[in-house]
Amino acid sequence: MTPKTQSPRKRPGGRSARVRAAVLEATFAELADVGYGQLSLERVAERAGVHKTTVYRRWQNKDSLILEAMLDRAGETVPTPDTGSLRSDLAQLGKDLIANLRDPAIEATARTGASIADRDSPVAQASRRFWHTWHELAGELIDRATARGELAAPVDPHLLLDATIGPIWFRLLLSDEPIDDDFAERLAELVAAGANATSAPEGS
Amino acid sequence: MTPKTQSPRKRPGGRSARVRAAVLEATFAELADVGYGQLSLERVAERAGVHKTTVYRRWQNKDSLILEAMLDRAGETVPTPDTGSLRSDLAQLGKDLIANLRDPAIEATARTGASIADRDSPVAQASRRFWHTWHELAGELIDRATARGELAAPVDPHLLLDATIGPIWFRLLLSDEPIDDDFAERLAELVAAGANATSAPEGS
Repeated sequence: MTPKTQSPRKRPGGRSARVRAAVLEATFAELADVGYGQLSLERVAERAGVHKTTVYRRWQNKDSLILEAMLDRAGETVPTPDTGSLRSDLAQLGKDLIANLRDPAIEATARTGASIADRDSPVAQASRRFWHTWHELAGELIDRATARGELAAPVDPHLLLDATIGPIWFRLLLSDEPIDDDFAERLAELVAAGANATSAPEGS
Repeated sequence: MTPKTQSPRKRPGGRSARVRAAVLEATFAELADVGYGQLSLERVAERAGVHKTTVYRRWQNKDSLILEAMLDRAGETVPTPDTGSLRSDLAQLGKDLIANLRDPAIEATARTGASIADRDSPVAQASRRFWHTWHELAGELIDRATARGELAAPVDPHLLLDATIGPIWFRLLLSDEPIDDDFAERLAELVAAGANATSAPEGS
């Protein structure tokens, strides 16, 4: 309940954390071996060496399990492009996302995440942790652009990042319009130009 | 099979179209009367005066049914802001979306739509029709900005529209960051400034 210790009940340490790590590891191993279609909570439990009721209690279904596993891993491996300019860094960020979305398992987990309205569910919590980490890591490219003097004044890094990847997610999840590298390039051009114009000391 | 007659089997005319209209109408009436939680395919069928098997065959579950009903209606009533400037039109577009998303039924249908990977499902088809109509109607605000001379050269209207609303959808469906009118304003400022800069005869 004190602000300093974040969500103490999510940090049971010891056995529970080991079980979680083993189950998530087993999930990746099963995904690689049998794929999304054949993956089952029973098989994952067996592979992780835990009771299947333990797995069912925490994750309920395979989409939740896969989503949490992917969010967990993705948080450790967010790439941050460093190509020398804000525009090309943002374009690379978009293209990296598009490349990742070609993986059916990533698309499936994103769709599952988008379907969950309950903000308190374990999956929603894992999702928020992932995006928090993502913004922190990807935010470095905005910091570098500022340090290079590409932006006249500080801009909200979240705004630029979300403007770059949000439309790609929108097309994937809702409008079903084409998503390709050209779209990522044009978005990055728009966002970088907008950031330049709006960060100018005396705009317009 | 000929390119000129689009999806002939989706145009059975007559009875099938009347049944569909009656069922979608009954869906709204039920939503208004009993809400999302209590809505059922049986009740909707009864209200529409059709056999429940007819409803089950076409829609399978209530999320599909509600989604198709909302997409159908939304396509007829897309508001196109006309405030006098590109930036404030885009801001209004974002704020209208945010206001709509406060309706739990709209949020629920969007999440259901986002969860469906099968591009051939009736819901996915209805979703594409909706977004096609939406882009067409909302595109008018870009046309007006061009006619007013706000944009030096033609820009892709889809790009500007998706850059304005995509990040709002991204925050709702994935990152769970705050969505408010201020976010819509700042996005519109970024996109309008970027459009101005990138449409300039000789950019940067």
